[in-house]
Amino acid sequence: MSEFAVIGKNLPKPDAFGKATGAALYIHDVEVKGMLHARIKRSERPHARIVSIDTSKARELPGVKAVITAADFSTVTPFGFHKDHPPLKGDKVRSYADEIAAVAAISEDIAQAACDLIVVEYEDLEPVFTVADAMKEGAPIIHESKGTNHVEDYDFNHGDVDAAFAEADIVLEDEFELTFVNHCCLGPTCMIAEYDLNENLTLWSPTQIPFLLQRDLAECLGIPATKTKIIQPLIGGAFGKGLDMYAFEPVCCMLSMKAGRPVRLLFNREEEFRYTPTRQPVKGRLKTGAKSDGTLLAREMRVLLDIGAYVSWGVLTPVVGMHTNSSLYRVPNVRYHGEAYYSNNPSSGAMRGYGNPQATFMIETHMDMLAERLGIAPDEVRRRNANRPGDETPSGAKYTTCGLPECIDIIARESGINAERERTDGGPIARGIGMASTLNVAGGARIYRSDGCGAIVKVDDFGKVGLVTGATEIGQGTDLILTQIVAEELGVPFEDVRIVPADTDIKPWDVGCHASRTAFIAGNAARMAAGQARDKIVLHAAKMLEARPEEIDIREGNVFVSGQADRSLPIGKVVRAIHFRGGGSIVTTEAFYDPPNEMTDAGHKGNISATYGFGTQAAAVEVDTETGQVTVKKIWAAHDVGRVLSPIGAEGQVEGGISMGMGYALTEQLIVEEGEVKNPTFLDYRIATSLDMPEIETHFVETIDPEGPFGAKGLGEMGSVPTAPAIANAVFDAIGVRIHSLPITPEKILHALKEKNRSES
Amino acid sequence: MSEFAVIGKNLPKPDAFGKATGAALYIHDVEVKGMLHARIKRSERPHARIVSIDTSKARELPGVKAVITAADFSTVTPFGFHKDHPPLKGDKVRSYADEIAAVAAISEDIAQAACDLIVVEYEDLEPVFTVADAMKEGAPIIHESKGTNHVEDYDFNHGDVDAAFAEADIVLEDEFELTFVNHCCLGPTCMIAEYDLNENLTLWSPTQIPFLLQRDLAECLGIPATKTKIIQPLIGGAFGKGLDMYAFEPVCCMLSMKAGRPVRLLFNREEEFRYTPTRQPVKGRLKTGAKSDGTLLAREMRVLLDIGAYVSWGVLTPVVGMHTNSSLYRVPNVRYHGEAYYSNNPSSGAMRGYGNPQATFMIETHMDMLAERLGIAPDEVRRRNANRPGDETPSGAKYTTCGLPECIDIIARESGINAERERTDGGPIARGIGMASTLNVAGGARIYRSDGCGAIVKVDDFGKVGLVTGATEIGQGTDLILTQIVAEELGVPFEDVRIVPADTDIKPWDVGCHASRTAFIAGNAARMAAGQARDKIVLHAAKMLEARPEEIDIREGNVFVSGQADRSLPIGKVVRAIHFRGGGSIVTTEAFYDPPNEMTDAGHKGNISATYGFGTQAAAVEVDTETGQVTVKKIWAAHDVGRVLSPIGAEGQVEGGISMGMGYALTEQLIVEEGEVKNPTFLDYRIATSLDMPEIETHFVETIDPEGPFGAKGLGEMGSVPTAPAIANAVFDAIGVRIHSLPITPEKILHALKEKNRSES
Repeated sequence: MSEFAVIGKNLPKPDAFGKATGAALYIHDVEVKGMLHARIKRSERPHARIVSIDTSKARELPGVKAVITAADFSTVTPFGFHKDHPPLKGDKVRSYADEIAAVAAISEDIAQAACDLIVVEYEDLEPVFTVADAMKEGAPIIHESKGTNHVEDYDFNHGDVDAAFAEADIVLEDEFELTFVNHCCLGPTCMIAEYDLNENLTLWSPTQIPFLLQRDLAECLGIPATKTKIIQPLIGGAFGKGLDMYAFEPVCCMLSMKAGRPVRLLFNREEEFRYTPTRQPVKGRLKTGAKSDGTLLAREMRVLLDIGAYVSWGVLTPVVGMHTNSSLYRVPNVRYHGEAYYSNNPSSGAMRGYGNPQATFMIETHMDMLAERLGIAPDEVRRRNANRPGDETPSGAKYTTCGLPECIDIIARESGINAERERTDGGPIARGIGMASTLNVAGGARIYRSDGCGAIVKVDDFGKVGLVTGATEIGQGTDLILTQIVAEELGVPFEDVRIVPADTDIKPWDVGCHASRTAFIAGNAARMAAGQARDKIVLHAAKMLEARPEEIDIREGNVFVSGQADRSLPIGKVVRAIHFRGGGSIVTTEAFYDPPNEMTDAGHKGNISATYGFGTQAAAVEVDTETGQVTVKKIWAAHDVGRVLSPIGAEGQVEGGISMGMGYALTEQLIVEEGEVKNPTFLDYRIATSLDMPEIETHFVETIDPEGPFGAKGLGEMGSVPTAPAIANAVFDAIGVRIHSLPITPEKILHALKEKNRSES
Repeated sequence: MSEFAVIGKNLPKPDAFGKATGAALYIHDVEVKGMLHARIKRSERPHARIVSIDTSKARELPGVKAVITAADFSTVTPFGFHKDHPPLKGDKVRSYADEIAAVAAISEDIAQAACDLIVVEYEDLEPVFTVADAMKEGAPIIHESKGTNHVEDYDFNHGDVDAAFAEADIVLEDEFELTFVNHCCLGPTCMIAEYDLNENLTLWSPTQIPFLLQRDLAECLGIPATKTKIIQPLIGGAFGKGLDMYAFEPVCCMLSMKAGRPVRLLFNREEEFRYTPTRQPVKGRLKTGAKSDGTLLAREMRVLLDIGAYVSWGVLTPVVGMHTNSSLYRVPNVRYHGEAYYSNNPSSGAMRGYGNPQATFMIETHMDMLAERLGIAPDEVRRRNANRPGDETPSGAKYTTCGLPECIDIIARESGINAERERTDGGPIARGIGMASTLNVAGGARIYRSDGCGAIVKVDDFGKVGLVTGATEIGQGTDLILTQIVAEELGVPFEDVRIVPADTDIKPWDVGCHASRTAFIAGNAARMAAGQARDKIVLHAAKMLEARPEEIDIREGNVFVSGQADRSLPIGKVVRAIHFRGGGSIVTTEAFYDPPNEMTDAGHKGNISATYGFGTQAAAVEVDTETGQVTVKKIWAAHDVGRVLSPIGAEGQVEGGISMGMGYALTEQLIVEEGEVKNPTFLDYRIATSLDMPEIETHFVETIDPEGPFGAKGLGEMGSVPTAPAIANAVFDAIGVRIHSLPITPEKILHALKEKNRSES
């Protein structure tokens, strides 16, 4: 029998019934009294000077309550990670997504009609659509005030890379290309802004960073942050999309400020594809040096990033790629160089994995090539280089627990990657198996001075427990995990714990939902607050039961003397006894957990996370050599998650990640031509659907992290990272060609097969 | 200059703008997704056995989603203060308000149509409409299981009352009659119940007792209290109506349980008059003995209460009347005897003053009669008997602060009650001035084992402060007062404090909004939590400013070294410094305040409140001796409120109370004939309107209570209590007749004048 009552058990998500039946109130369902509807007038040019904006006809349209342009923001400096982004653009446009004006009206149709009546006169400027063009001397400058299209450099060095390459038995060097992809949240962008008569601004938002957004909105709108409040209703997916404030958010707020009524802004799917941030497209070059036994000696990664028109937090993704480069497998000498440039393409942002999918795709392709070239089994080359507990990597990551070797073992065994097997169906179908591993931060990531999260716990008269967490549920299962943690720590039934919906006025601070940090950070905070409540209850129950506090235990909502079932009280009775008396008190506690990690130094070194997660996946594919079609038949996944808090929850996270990774590998691509998104529909974007999903076999390696809540580590992003390289490696295993760019389309396969046949013949 | 930054200042209610403009979301405005509408089938008889209930036609009506009868509650014991109340009545009905069946449908019209299709067969029973009839031997028994219509006796004895009457120079003895009145909340009863797929029950409710309702609902519905949650949206008045759970609340919940959808129940104004509880009608007899100098020697009050068909918390109102009898003015020998009986009339409940208006009307009429008979000025007879600080009254009330003498002085002086003045207009108009005083609990009232309230405070990164209070805002201004207290204690601007809307899952416990306890109890709790936050901020700021903590002050959101304006930090900056670092923490605090008062003993003795409030009012009236019409020309009010937290707020409370007291005195009356309410409209009920309101001059006596928050005491109910006797005494002063029953209608005046003329001629 498990030592735990609810940890490790398969329990239903508290929000599952509501979400499955439609009873749940997603942000899209929220109606605020007197709400208007907003539409945004976007640029019709990729790069142009704005000569004039005529909103007169729009203002005259009956039902229009507010029309705003850049002039309404005139006293405000641009926002964003590099303060380069004006909410509405008055002087020039830098992409088709650029917001020029916005309308609030009594209906969405009227607002759209008004937008259509806004006449903008442009003076076209030469556009820049590639990093190569952006880098050129004399290239058109997208942000004149910056004087250059160059945004950022990223450099990391450790050891003597050149010497290591010189002494390597084998050196691989390849170029890779990763494309634009979209988060594809099923709930499209939606928000409601209400600027009320007390001059307080409330934003109902699907953000992942309520506290930073509270600050950013205030700054952008020129109002005190004490006047802003963020409410997060149920969020229909985020995947990193909610890690920035975007222009449309202050625009929606300003519309409410001008109209004096609440204003709702809802994107349709086409807008979601066109105007929300993308994962960074990357052009990269990886050089790997190893000994003939496969031992890694050196790695050098160089990447070029297309940032798009404005800089978001996504500009830091190379820092994560850099960490993957230095810390996935033992590699003593590493170098990283990245450069990011503006373009007139859609702006990129943060997306699940945040630089890790791109870097891992390159590294794991090389690991597979090493195995192939050196005649070592694919699992063996990884096993020989696998990190182990106690490792400190070149970037300063300290691996307290590390289940990577076990993950590799499980995947090799279960997938049969080294077993004899039928390689074809005798006809055009070629079969292959490939594998890949991943490393992720799993104990927070101190990219901000605080990496903490707070929690408030209340135990009521009946033993019902309310938790206010700083954390953000974006569908990933935070509410489930935190409910389990609180129930376990307090010894109450899972059903008796409630996550209390709350807004920034009372939610305890949290840096945001990123870096797979919630179970670990918010989990520890919730556990601490619950533990304090438990302590108070135990102390009082000891008096009531005439026992010493250390003899008291709580299980299933009963407080009892250990081993003496008859000396027992319902937890609610103890709480009532604590406050139903003169001078009583109640059981309400608060805690804040800030993990023992550190910000990296100027050289990008430091133990950024309190612990790290690992995983390995294998994919079995069939490639139709006549059509180029790749079918994934099965995926095996093994992940080191410290301790599994919820088996179905963890499996769901891994499966969702694999689905995203499969799309990244084979089908999904935002086709951007001359700055314009050409396929803004699920059909043309080719998102992986449930029908595309193979059998998935998930294993967990429970390393029981000493710092994690009940030993757990973060998991959220990890499942999506190794899938694409595992599939690419499986394609090579099947047909002997390597595709170094994603997605691996039938066209690329057929083209590569043709090249291969030509070179072999 | 005041020592305070916000206490004692005239600041706007935080909810004023929204309420004044209609932007506020009252409970009536709440829409829950998928909401159905409920109507209740009520009894068509005052007292009858139910032979059969046929709901078949109602169930067949399209759009009907649930029809329930008593059978749906069959496993549940009756609820209520005496556990005598089944939510739906299956065996018999005891009043026209009795709920027999209920329907939830897609519209209110359909639900009503379905109710109309329910056929109930009755077997009439002899009804009981007066206490006299209820007391008779062989009277029809309303609750057979009780075996009697007698509900409760109330006895209090102190000193030797009979001996005191024997030695008194003057003994008065009179009968009084106080009628049914209604709370007349502008927001009629409304609730929404949602029993969700997780089997959690949420009730959006205008209750004043969220935590007791959470328990009561669960008991009544036979579900665990861990499954219930109460949300209180903005409440459009309560005045004591929300101190009980009524049958319609579990009925609405059961409809949601059966329909599987949220269900809304809204009363129209007619139902509000017919089916919500009334103030207790009382028949009373008061005997007062005094020395010839007016010094009170003894008082004996006897009352008979008509409880109606079911027992509510209102059954305890005689305990308050008993307290007034023993503790308003110094009176060494007191006796009280009360009896309460069932009838087939509407059930009475709790209403502002809770027994005090009735008792005070009797006592203050006698005080006036004493003055008249003994030839002492009306203020002087009161001054001679007035309580003083340090008094302990026969019931054990300990008066730490007591401004009653000052209140009497102010009113005598300002009203010119003793000055020579024109007594008539020369024609039919007679003028008079009368006065009356009041005593109220003003530091809680321990009628429950806990008289406490909790608070959670959060100070955010910008100095914005969130407060979650256990207290309930029912329009009385709790949110204003608590905002001021928190702002003052923390040293932040008033505008930077927010009351956070919260539900029972996180609201810290509070016994409820009654007994004028909120400013005192919730105020102290909020101040304690804010004080802890302040301490944490001061401690950290001291380090930052390199000063000792005792040198640090906070004002207007700035933390500074006292007397050194240049050594200063914005409070938000200090909070950020506290948590924007490794191992940081946040500024979230919680406190629970339980006042130093005690439950009364079996003899009703004990210091039930931590402090007491006092007041005196005078009324100037004109009586038209031809029509009997009484017009109130002016009211002077002086109240001891400890410290005035908000002058406009306190004035508003007093003025609202006077409006209620005026209605009670002159016009308002629920006319109940044979168990049926005959005037269920504002017009016929004759509520006092704004046009009836006289000039009101309000004075406050600030006794600065040592236990109150910043010295404040409770005030909520006090303004409404002395108004009616002051007006009645003014009527006597004008025309020389005393009306011993309320309301003082023109008919009663003309009748009394005729009697007086007959006896004088």
